Amino acid sequence: MGHPSHSADCGSLNDALRLPIICEPDPSSQTLVAPKNSIKLLDRKRVLGWLSENVPEKRLNHILRVEETAIKLAEYHNLDWERAAQAGLLHDLAKYFKPKRLLEIAKADGIKLDPVDEINPHLLHADVGAIVARDEFGVVDTEVLAAIYNHTLGRPGMSLISCVVFLADGMEPGRGDTTELNEIRKLSRKNLHRAVLQICEDSMRSLFASRSLIHPRVLQTRNWALQMAQQSAKGDKPKLSSA
Amino acid sequence: MGHPSHSADCGSLNDALRLPIICEPDPSSQTLVAPKNSIKLLDRKRVLGWLSENVPEKRLNHILRVEETAIKLAEYHNLDWERAAQAGLLHDLAKYFKPKRLLEIAKADGIKLDPVDEINPHLLHADVGAIVARDEFGVVDTEVLAAIYNHTLGRPGMSLISCVVFLADGMEPGRGDTTELNEIRKLSRKNLHRAVLQICEDSMRSLFASRSLIHPRVLQTRNWALQMAQQSAKGDKPKLSSA
Repeated sequence: MGHPSHSADCGSLNDALRLPIICEPDPSSQTLVAPKNSIKLLDRKRVLGWLSENVPEKRLNHILRVEETAIKLAEYHNLDWERAAQAGLLHDLAKYFKPKRLLEIAKADGIKLDPVDEINPHLLHADVGAIVARDEFGVVDTEVLAAIYNHTLGRPGMSLISCVVFLADGMEPGRGDTTELNEIRKLSRKNLHRAVLQICEDSMRSLFASRSLIHPRVLQTRNWALQMAQQSAKGDKPKLSSA
Repeated sequence: MGHPSHSADCGSLNDALRLPIICEPDPSSQTLVAPKNSIKLLDRKRVLGWLSENVPEKRLNHILRVEETAIKLAEYHNLDWERAAQAGLLHDLAKYFKPKRLLEIAKADGIKLDPVDEINPHLLHADVGAIVARDEFGVVDTEVLAAIYNHTLGRPGMSLISCVVFLADGMEPGRGDTTELNEIRKLSRKNLHRAVLQICEDSMRSLFASRSLIHPRVLQTRNWALQMAQQSAKGDKPKLSSA
């Protein structure tokens, strides 16, 4: 099992992916599409071999369903399905890393930690997954890396490919057949931001019910997705908050 | 109608009240109780005169109900009812200030603005209310000022008097007789942090439904109140988040 190296030459993933954390939509983020030649062929067989040693079979099946769901959703919206496929396949590389290891790798790479990350380092499996994709599999495409990084909490200003992978992770067929999930599957074809909004709110409602801490980035992503969805509905400006 | 002055001698309210914005409870905040002699007698008649010129009668009646509810709740929990009364009476001083004026006063006093404040300056009526209380009515007690400042969004680490005023504003009898409100009224007698948690979650659910932006401080307050409530339930540690 390879441990990601952290040579100074690699630079910080956080620097490479850093996007402004704002609630107002950041138009520049829509142009975060790496030049076509930055996406390299990925040795899918090698990734599957690595995964079979590092995650249980049940998780591997989830990963394959996320890959397939991401491809279909990207194709449906005329987005780059190859990037969606790579990020889908690589999104859970660090899912079974121990908390101590996640914290060590994230800190070594300069990831800025929220207190909720420190209490619940498992959330860092997304950030660390992107680091492993870069260091173990040589992924350099910033949009693929960002989609891995953003797959759990989202991020204000994330690209449409990130939205696709975020949604695919939450709605792949193995997640179930509830009314809420079927609503998200339907929304994901109508409007990606509207579906991201819904999944963030469903997730927060569920974390209210289970009395769990909520990472502040979920709310930042929700506020951003709300604004994006409202802007795309012609003439519908964001409503102002009363709290 | 008096306009709050902003002499350099007053210092920044933000400096005076600055508390760490963290999700972990800050034990030091529990000692943010000004020495008894820092709470001065307030000329209640003068405040009522000022309010009658600056807020409509309906709002004045709400303010009086918040004052009364805060006194009762403070007495019930053996807290300083005088501080609760002052903050209750003064909490909505800036409720009818125009957005431009709220932004100007907040910026002049060094209040750090979130993008949601800039989109919806009305949220600043709490911060600016504390500035008016200080500059127009000579309030110097930091706990009273903090309770005014925290009455809308709360704040991680806020004092029990702040919790009382935050709750009184949300649950005073004029707010209605719904199941949710009656639950909060009941919880407020059992455990102040548990009631703060509930009001934050109810507020977020309602803002989900109305498709409104949500200020990040509501979630920070919710996470903090959750941890405080769980710590007070013996042997019940905070559950870790899955998002």
